[in-house]
Formats: sequence, structure tokens, C-alpha cells
Amino acid sequence: MIDSKHRLQMKSIRLEALGDGIFSIAMTIMVIELAIPVVKGNGWADFLSALKLIGSDFLCYFISFVVLGIMWYGHRMMFEYIGHTDRYFIFLGVLFYMVICLVPFSTRILAHETLKWYSILVYAVNLSLCNLSLYIQWLYGIKKPALMERELPGEVKKEARILFLISPGLYAVAIAFSFFIPEVSIGIFIITPLLYLLPNKLDRYMP
Amino acid sequence: MIDSKHRLQMKSIRLEALGDGIFSIAMTIMVIELAIPVVKGNGWADFLSALKLIGSDFLCYFISFVVLGIMWYGHRMMFEYIGHTDRYFIFLGVLFYMVICLVPFSTRILAHETLKWYSILVYAVNLSLCNLSLYIQWLYGIKKPALMERELPGEVKKEARILFLISPGLYAVAIAFSFFIPEVSIGIFIITPLLYLLPNKLDRYMP
Amino acid sequence: MIDSKHRLQMKSIRLEALGDGIFSIAMTIMVIELAIPVVKGNGWADFLSALKLIGSDFLCYFISFVVLGIMWYGHRMMFEYIGHTDRYFIFLGVLFYMVICLVPFSTRILAHETLKWYSILVYAVNLSLCNLSLYIQWLYGIKKPALMERELPGEVKKEARILFLISPGLYAVAIAFSFFIPEVSIGIFIITPLLYLLPNKLDRYMP
Amino acid sequence: MIDSKHRLQMKSIRLEALGDGIFSIAMTIMVIELAIPVVKGNGWADFLSALKLIGSDFLCYFISFVVLGIMWYGHRMMFEYIGHTDRYFIFLGVLFYMVICLVPFSTRILAHETLKWYSILVYAVNLSLCNLSLYIQWLYGIKKPALMERELPGEVKKEARILFLISPGLYAVAIAFSFFIPEVSIGIFIITPLLYLLPNKLDRYMP
Repeated sequence: MIDSKHRLQMKSIRLEALGDGIFSIAMTIMVIELAIPVVKGNGWADFLSALKLIGSDFLCYFISFVVLGIMWYGHRMMFEYIGHTDRYFIFLGVLFYMVICLVPFSTRILAHETLKWYSILVYAVNLSLCNLSLYIQWLYGIKKPALMERELPGEVKKEARILFLISPGLYAVAIAFSFFIPEVSIGIFIITPLLYLLPNKLDRYMP
Repeated sequence: MIDSKHRLQMKSIRLEALGDGIFSIAMTIMVIELAIPVVKGNGWADFLSALKLIGSDFLCYFISFVVLGIMWYGHRMMFEYIGHTDRYFIFLGVLFYMVICLVPFSTRILAHETLKWYSILVYAVNLSLCNLSLYIQWLYGIKKPALMERELPGEVKKEARILFLISPGLYAVAIAFSFFIPEVSIGIFIITPLLYLLPNKLDRYMP
Repeated sequence: MIDSKHRLQMKSIRLEALGDGIFSIAMTIMVIELAIPVVKGNGWADFLSALKLIGSDFLCYFISFVVLGIMWYGHRMMFEYIGHTDRYFIFLGVLFYMVICLVPFSTRILAHETLKWYSILVYAVNLSLCNLSLYIQWLYGIKKPALMERELPGEVKKEARILFLISPGLYAVAIAFSFFIPEVSIGIFIITPLLYLLPNKLDRYMP
Repeated sequence: MIDSKHRLQMKSIRLEALGDGIFSIAMTIMVIELAIPVVKGNGWADFLSALKLIGSDFLCYFISFVVLGIMWYGHRMMFEYIGHTDRYFIFLGVLFYMVICLVPFSTRILAHETLKWYSILVYAVNLSLCNLSLYIQWLYGIKKPALMERELPGEVKKEARILFLISPGLYAVAIAFSFFIPEVSIGIFIITPLLYLLPNKLDRYMP
């Protein structure tokens, strides 16, 4: 046994900082890829039709930004309960960040061919992998008492599972619809993040 | 009621870190978009005429950088009073960061066609939305005593309202002028950030 | 002698923050360079052949992301033992960050011509320089008691040396193979990061 | 007078975080602009001549990275003495960050036409403005006792002035030489950062 003097703290703060950096870049980087509208003429109609051309790009940007915001929120909440890390926890974190970094890429694909089944597939799989890899990291962390910062109430554990798994479930439905009515898939992409705005059982634990 | 042992801290420090990351990227990213000047020849005149060609790009870069600096300052000041967060406060923060991330995009549009009414419109609307969304986040935060870090003097509250709303007001004037004398609009874009350098009532609270 | 009142703290926290920023950008930036797949047609076969075309790009992205994750981990572990900095320690840190920043560049080269000896050479040399420059920074830091945060057990010192030097050793083998069977070199690039997932002697010091 | 309960802390930590973010992006962003070498053939000679073609790009990248590293160091040292901020201090900081963000731009110009007088002029002026704006921020900060974290010894003040002003002085010489022997100017760009590696009077204050 290692005596406590030699035992490392391994506080989670550095991993959180890496994550905050990655999220802030992934969120910002999507804007570089927005092409500026080409307005042909000087009237309102010209301006509006130029806006219309970049409309689906913007829609995808907005959805992805809000989704990344929600994932950042989930990631941030995880560290309210988990305050220390170990090697495997950090490796799982790196995998999570890897799929997060792919979101601007998937967004570009979806913006490029919004109603194609394969664009919807790539986007839905990417977002689902974000949720699932964070969920795995969470499950690993809460299993190890030495990593915990505070006691995890059973209610929070259950609610977290729902919040982690609801998106992949809905995105699976979006994939299924993509072959027939891709507009429904896009609708699901729009509605899913809004669900996280509804009151949930974790609100009671907020200050 | 949740007992205090289970109540989460939800310190604002992580949201501040995300915001600092987003601001620093938005500020830096604008430079990637600056085209390097093409100097045709080896004389001073060649150099100066090359500089002239990139002059409006640079002007837009400078204005946007200083405006983002001022918004970062407002965002930073908010957290002197608000020290904790909840779910909705964070969501409002994500919306604020979303419009902040669009500033390099609007700047590119303005730099591309500086004196067009629609460029001025997009830029003015974007900057106004930054101020207004931060103001909404601020109003939400100061309404909830559990989020406050320290008491908010009435004088600060009033002065903050003025500082939040002065830019959108001036930018509305800039939009109005853009249809007739767009040079005045650009002048307003230049002068507005300088107003934030004037002494104000918050200076008394500084160290 | 300077009295203790004037002696600077020089906590390592700022250098860690700079490093976290650089790592998060280097990790994220690689995605910008991923070209989106061009799907010619609407069938599964079209989609799969488009994926295949970007397959080696993705492989290189994955390898580099995980390698950067491991280097971030090593960098993070260093600061569990070293809590203060001086001028030369920071300069060595800047050199380390400089070669880290080149990883997206080398990755692009490897992704562009994956099986060419010179791509493998550039990539292997870049990754080796990352490990070696961090090792030099580490050796400098642990030699100066004033920089240490806690006592460094002899076992950790030895294990760290192995972990620092194992990659450059394997990458040298990858370079040697690149002239004859470059597929083996790529295999080494894939396997090397996985070795860091095996249990090691540092695990005993984890919480 | 405002009573101490209402007086804001205005700790410098947020400004430092913004700065660390901006430095890490400015340092990393230069790599995106490095074009990958085009190797025509499969021999050593082909590889070396490809390397040669990107040689001046790399030289500029290395110089700028180290210069930014040194400026980060100066910026970091400033906050060992200054621990609080006010509005004007932050505005001066934004100006400093603005010229820092332009370094990747100037580097691109220098890399594009390394031996032209106007490239050298732009680069030298940019780096000088970095030093001078940081120096102005420093002078403003140390003049206000309320911002200071610890006492500033006279010796440190003098040495800081030398370290702040030595680069602009040398860069002025580089500009002068650029019209006759631009190779000397490049030599000055290479040597100047190395001067900061020499022992100086601040070393005595290090841990």
C-alpha cells in the first residue's frame, strides 16, 4: 500500500479546463465554416434571398451550438459529483472530447446536404456517441468512491441515466425517418435540445 | 426540500472559463480572415496603396476586437455579483456565447462590403443581440438571491442598465443612417466602443 | 540573498492553463482539415465508398487525437509533482508546446500520403520530439527542489523514464520499417498509444 | 466613499485566463497556415528540396512561437506583482491582446516575402507594439497601489524596463537594415528572443 503522503490528488480541475477549452473551440470553429451571403443587388428582396441561401447552414449551426451547450452542461454537472480522476477516467474523457471535436465536421456535412439520409446518419451517430461516451465516463466515475466529490443521491443517478439516453433514443428515430421523410429527422434534431429545457428532477438540487 | 448536504454549489467558475475560451477564440479567429496585402513593387507608394486596400478590413477588425473586449468586460463584471449558476442561467449564457461567436462572421460581412445597408444591418443586429442577451442573462441572475455572490447596490443596477442598452440604441441609429449616409453608421460603430472609456458610476466600486 | 517577502511564488498554474489551451486547440484544429466526404449517389455502396476515401484521414485523426490525449496526460501528471516554475522551466515548456502545435501539421502530411517513408519520418520525428522535450522539461524540474510540490518516489521516477522513452523507441522502429513495409509503421503508430492503457506502476499512486 | 463591503475585488485571474486563451490560440493558429511540403519523387534529395521550399515558413513560425512564448512570460510575470484590475487596466490589456493576435498575420507576411523591407517593417512594428503596449499596461498597473499584489522592488522595476524596451530597440535596427541588407534584419529577429535566455537580475527573485 502507498501511504497517504505519496498518494496523488488527481483533482479533476485540469481535465475540466481541457474540456472547457475543447468545447469553446468546437463551438466557435463552426462559424469559420459559415460562408458569407452573396447579395446580388441592393433591395430587401435581394438580401432576403441571400439569407435564404445560407438558411440551412445557419439552422445547422444553431442546432449544433445548442446541442454542444447542453453537452457542456452535462459534462459540467458530472464534475459536481466527481472531483478526482484516474488514468482510465481521463482516457474515457479523451474519447468523449474526440467525438465532441467531430461535431463541427458532422455539422458541415449536415449543412452541405441537409435532407440526405447519410448526412442525417452521420450527424445522429456523432451526437449519440457524444452522449454515450460521456455516459460511460460517468458510469466509470461514480463506481469508484475515491473519485467522488460528494454523495450521489439515487434520484440523481436515475434522472442522469434518462437525460443521457433520451437523445440517442430520439436520434435513432431520426435515422429511421431519414430514409422516408428526412424533414421529420431535422424536426427531431430541432426538438431534442429543447427537451432539456423542461423542468427535471435535478432542478431541486440547484442553489 | 433537499437538505444542504445534497444541494449543489454550481459555482459560476466553469461557465466563466467556457466564456473566456469562447471570447479568446472569437477575438483571435478574426485575424485568420485578414488577407495579407499584395505589394506590387518595392516603393513606399506600392506599400501604402497595398495597405489602403486592406484598410477597411483592418478597421472592421479593430472595431470588433474592441467591442468584444468591452463585452468580455461586461460579462466579467456580471460575475463579480453573480457567483452561482443554475440550468436556465447557463442556457441563457449559451445563447449569449452563440451570438458572440457570430461576431467574426458579421465582421467578415462588414469588411467585405463596408458601406452596404445590409452589411451594416447584420453587424448592428449581431452586436445588439450580444448586449441584449447578456442583459437578459444578467436580469435573470440578479432576480435569484441564491445565485448572488454579493449585494447589488441600486446605483450599480441602474448604471448597468444604461451600459447594456446604450449600444443597441446607437446601433439602431446606425441602421437608420445606413440607407442614406452609411458613413455615419460606420462612424457610430467607431464611436460607440469609445463611450465605454468615459468615466462612469461603477468606477467608484473599483479597487 | 532575497528575503522571502520578495521571493516570487511562480506557481505552475498559469503554465498549465497555457498548456491546456494549446492542447485543446491542437486537438480540435485537426478536424477543420478533415474534408467532408463526397457521396456520389444515394445508396449504401456510394456512402461506404465515400467513407473509404476519407478513411486514412480519419485513421490519422484518431491516432493523433489519442496520442495528444496521452501527452496531455503526461504533461498533467508532471504538475502533480512540480508546482512551481522558473524562467528556464517555462522556456522548456514553450519548446514542448511548439512541437505539440506541429502535430496537426504532421498529421496532415501523414493523412495526405500515408504510406510514404517521408510522411512517416516527419510524423514519427514530431511525436518523438514531443516526448523528448517533455522529458527534458521534467528532468529539469525534478532536479530543482524549489520547484517540487511533493516528494518524488524513486519508483515513479523510473517508471516515468520508461513511459517517456518507450514511444520514441517504437517510433524509431517505425521509421526503420517505413522504407520497406510502411504498413508496419502505421501499425506501430496504432499500437503505441494503446500500450499506455496497460496497467503500470504509477496506478498505485492514484486515488 | 464606497464602504469596503461594496468594493469589488476585481481579481486579475479572469484577465489572465482570457490572455492565456488568446496566447494559446495565436501560437497554435500559425500552424494552420503552414503549407504541407510537396515531395516530387521518393528519394532523400526530393524530400530535402521539399523541406527547403518550406524552410523560410518554418523559420518564421519558430521565431514567432518563441517570441510569443517570451511575451507570454512577460505577461505572466506582470501578474506576479499585479493581482487586481480596474477598467482602464483591462482596456490596456485588450489593446495588448489585439496586437498579440496580429502576430500570426505579420508572421504570414514575413513568411510570404521574407527579405522584403515592407515585410520586415510590418513584423518589426507588430512585435514592438506588443512589447510597448504591455509596458504601458505595466506602468499603469504599478502606479496604482490598489492593484498591486506585492511590493515591487526598485531593482525589478528597472530590469523590467530594460527587458520591455530592448526588443523595440533592436527591431528598430532591424527596420533600418531592411532597406540595405535584409538578411541582417532576419538575423536580429533570430537573436533577439535568445537574449531573453541570458541570466538577468530577476532570476534572484525566482523560487
